Amino acid sequence: LFYIPSGPPVDGLIDELSRTLEEGDVIVDAGNSYWGDSLHRYQRLRGTGIHFVDCGTSGGVDGARHGACFMVGGEPEPIALLEPILKQLAVEGGYVHAGPPAAGHFTKLVHNGIEFGMLQAIGEGVDLLEHHRDKLDIANILRCWRHGSVIRSWLVDLMAEAFRQEAGLDKVPAYVDDTGEVNWLVSDALRMEVAIPVIAEAVMQLLASRDSEKSWARAIAMMRHGFGGHAYGPSESARAERILGRVEEPSPEKPRVDVQP
Amino acid sequence: LFYIPSGPPVDGLIDELSRTLEEGDVIVDAGNSYWGDSLHRYQRLRGTGIHFVDCGTSGGVDGARHGACFMVGGEPEPIALLEPILKQLAVEGGYVHAGPPAAGHFTKLVHNGIEFGMLQAIGEGVDLLEHHRDKLDIANILRCWRHGSVIRSWLVDLMAEAFRQEAGLDKVPAYVDDTGEVNWLVSDALRMEVAIPVIAEAVMQLLASRDSEKSWARAIAMMRHGFGGHAYGPSESARAERILGRVEEPSPEKPRVDVQP
Amino acid sequence: LFYIPSGPPVDGLIDELSRTLEEGDVIVDAGNSYWGDSLHRYQRLRGTGIHFVDCGTSGGVDGARHGACFMVGGEPEPIALLEPILKQLAVEGGYVHAGPPAAGHFTKLVHNGIEFGMLQAIGEGVDLLEHHRDKLDIANILRCWRHGSVIRSWLVDLMAEAFRQEAGLDKVPAYVDDTGEVNWLVSDALRMEVAIPVIAEAVMQLLASRDSEKSWARAIAMMRHGFGGHAYGPSESARAERILGRVEEPSPEKPRVDVQP
Amino acid sequence: LFYIPSGPPVDGLIDELSRTLEEGDVIVDAGNSYWGDSLHRYQRLRGTGIHFVDCGTSGGVDGARHGACFMVGGEPEPIALLEPILKQLAVEGGYVHAGPPAAGHFTKLVHNGIEFGMLQAIGEGVDLLEHHRDKLDIANILRCWRHGSVIRSWLVDLMAEAFRQEAGLDKVPAYVDDTGEVNWLVSDALRMEVAIPVIAEAVMQLLASRDSEKSWARAIAMMRHGFGGHAYGPSESARAERILGRVEEPSPEKPRVDVQP
Repeated sequence: LFYIPSGPPVDGLIDELSRTLEEGDVIVDAGNSYWGDSLHRYQRLRGTGIHFVDCGTSGGVDGARHGACFMVGGEPEPIALLEPILKQLAVEGGYVHAGPPAAGHFTKLVHNGIEFGMLQAIGEGVDLLEHHRDKLDIANILRCWRHGSVIRSWLVDLMAEAFRQEAGLDKVPAYVDDTGEVNWLVSDALRMEVAIPVIAEAVMQLLASRDSEKSWARAIAMMRHGFGGHAYGPSESARAERILGRVEEPSPEKPRVDVQP
Repeated sequence: LFYIPSGPPVDGLIDELSRTLEEGDVIVDAGNSYWGDSLHRYQRLRGTGIHFVDCGTSGGVDGARHGACFMVGGEPEPIALLEPILKQLAVEGGYVHAGPPAAGHFTKLVHNGIEFGMLQAIGEGVDLLEHHRDKLDIANILRCWRHGSVIRSWLVDLMAEAFRQEAGLDKVPAYVDDTGEVNWLVSDALRMEVAIPVIAEAVMQLLASRDSEKSWARAIAMMRHGFGGHAYGPSESARAERILGRVEEPSPEKPRVDVQP
Repeated sequence: LFYIPSGPPVDGLIDELSRTLEEGDVIVDAGNSYWGDSLHRYQRLRGTGIHFVDCGTSGGVDGARHGACFMVGGEPEPIALLEPILKQLAVEGGYVHAGPPAAGHFTKLVHNGIEFGMLQAIGEGVDLLEHHRDKLDIANILRCWRHGSVIRSWLVDLMAEAFRQEAGLDKVPAYVDDTGEVNWLVSDALRMEVAIPVIAEAVMQLLASRDSEKSWARAIAMMRHGFGGHAYGPSESARAERILGRVEEPSPEKPRVDVQP
Repeated sequence: LFYIPSGPPVDGLIDELSRTLEEGDVIVDAGNSYWGDSLHRYQRLRGTGIHFVDCGTSGGVDGARHGACFMVGGEPEPIALLEPILKQLAVEGGYVHAGPPAAGHFTKLVHNGIEFGMLQAIGEGVDLLEHHRDKLDIANILRCWRHGSVIRSWLVDLMAEAFRQEAGLDKVPAYVDDTGEVNWLVSDALRMEVAIPVIAEAVMQLLASRDSEKSWARAIAMMRHGFGGHAYGPSESARAERILGRVEEPSPEKPRVDVQP
């Protein structure tokens, strides 16, 4: 029984291990491998009698300390051996045998996609709070949302704690790095023919946070300059028109022209 | 001190109340009024000496029973009167004085926007689980995510419970109704010049769930027919090409052509 | 017969005109008024016997010189009077009586929404060309796309001309201003319950081009720091993992694990 | 000098050809191969003295008849041989040597991405026209947009023609098939770290047009049922609230509460 932390040299390690391991032994990849690779590894080892189990782990640094959440994929036999150990390492209830080989890493990947969508939604919400016409007590709004709200979640907990700790957003760079795994999920979704517009959008926004050139915006500015003679850069007259044209606040009680005839 | 449940006849009720109320009394609108209307109501009552407080309430049916989450906006004086009562009705910690008049309803609206983004992200994740090449134990995956995962949240709790209760998705209609409040938020964001792509996308998807005509898809099919002679409806040859062209699974270990030179 | 150029003081001008105009005269608003306002103006003037026609004008600076494209809304009687004049001012074929009052300005608004989607699509394409692993002859690619390609269009013409004229993108600011009209269309679509994800996304991207704070990205960075201990700012290790995990180029011929069982 | 039409058996054909071809001969892949494969093929043939040129072709059925648009990638020597022939087959101006090997197919792929964004933008516009409160003369609006408008383009031409020919949208299935190439581009963009939100959204919408299950919508309905007791399926009360809360039409002239303090 072995536990491999993660990543690219996995195949090398498996080769090495498969020379010393015996029939019935179990190799567990508990890292963030792509589920397609895990499926290949399972297939490669199947003939040798050595079992392969893929295990997605969630919960971050905190999870490692107080109990993580494990999603495993594999055949019943090795899973039966592992289950007692993983249940002990997991937080109460934080274990699932998700399905056959590769199901653990796939499930973890989907989890990460949901996480990206949630992060972006919360980020946009904080942005709106920051730009309200009146100054809001954002630190306490976030703290309040942790208790009894529909969006209560660990991510809101973390947002509230970080906002208080950093005394707002100003000191934090507007740049989000990531390890690229959710890119795999977007490519998977396209092949599976499942539309995931919000998860894909969240990935695009991470890329946007790292884009200081904004070539697309330069290109659009050039076309607009071409057809409208719009000047480059901020325009006072465009801004004035925008403000004049602002959509009025909706007032259910006031008469209005309706979109229905 | 009064408590108005919600909605459009609010102004009528306020007019009625303002005739019987005395200086120093407080009207609380705890419904889902638009924050712009709440601001107008506060301004209208200011001269009369009657206080107006806007109060966003989150937590749903469950919150009403076990303690809700309150976000209030208003001036310090009436808030001081209300605070002890609301804190008693709220779940522990589920109360915030978000800011000046209208801040309560604005904060609740932002909360609802975040909720929409989270709902769509989880919905897309469940869709991916449903379409994996192997059958997954989705009921237990969702239950597992409740414990120790990064995405643990009340919405994941509800998803897990509903999935088990309904024994999957099949019996539930693929149609999402909503009361249209997050539409206000999208219009607000445009005027505030804050980009909220994921929240806006989530709203668009709700509309899409209610769209059985898909006029846009018909129009696209017609243009494609025009330039490529593509037949209307599902095409076996297109499907075959799509499958042949499927992006391979990423394999960090294998050599590959890189996007970098 | 009068011709009003555009914008906010329209109602004042109409009031003034309606005092001197006689029954049967026609007021034409050929500016970018919101169609809901045009409907109100038509209704207001109906009783006076003065006709109101709304006229959306497209074609930009170039159109004004070589013939524009007119979309008019109104009742048959005043339209019959106007048609010969507008057809003369329009480029050959560039005139339509779109429908009853307000239809002209609504049609123009939809046109602008399509324009925004096209601009963003072309902008993203240019961005991809700029970031290819090898240096491409972008000026000539754009010029080539003007002739015989599926995307040939006036906007591609303008992009090609501007790219050549400015010798690339570098000198143009990455900032797109706009007059806010398409914001109206997004609000309309929400009320009409029509999903327009690409048009809405294009509007969001214009806002993003003007956002130098990126509060949302700061917020996401803070949550990621909270759960993963991810450092703030660019991370060499994240980048290394991302590169290792890059999705391989799809190769239809090579065997691979499929998403289907 | 050879001309290969397209697709997956390209490598087999190249193997066959390379046995009979001599040093200095040129193989041209004018199909829709993935540019990464074209790069591999170029590299494989380089040692043999046989030249490889990748050629993206645009223009559809019409282009084949009246002259297409060619984007070629390759080394100067074979390109010099091909240029006169391709220029003769192309529509006037519809030829570009885009860059080194693989640049032709990459450029064509970017072209297809832009095309998808344009198609979706036009489709959404037509959807809006269909749902206006008053009946519009859509056939003539589309025809008018062909002349002098900012969005004049071949795709608008095709839309106008198809709308007239099919007498509207009703007879066309709301289902869009595609050959999956733009999926490659989305995966490329993620690896290139270029955000292409509108192109990605357009791909997602094509998938959505083919999704009759809408599992994501079922999942969202279940969570909403969980927190709000919302009934499944269309709800009269939700609809009523939505209509009451409709955002009013923007009226630049009327006083209003602003988002700015």
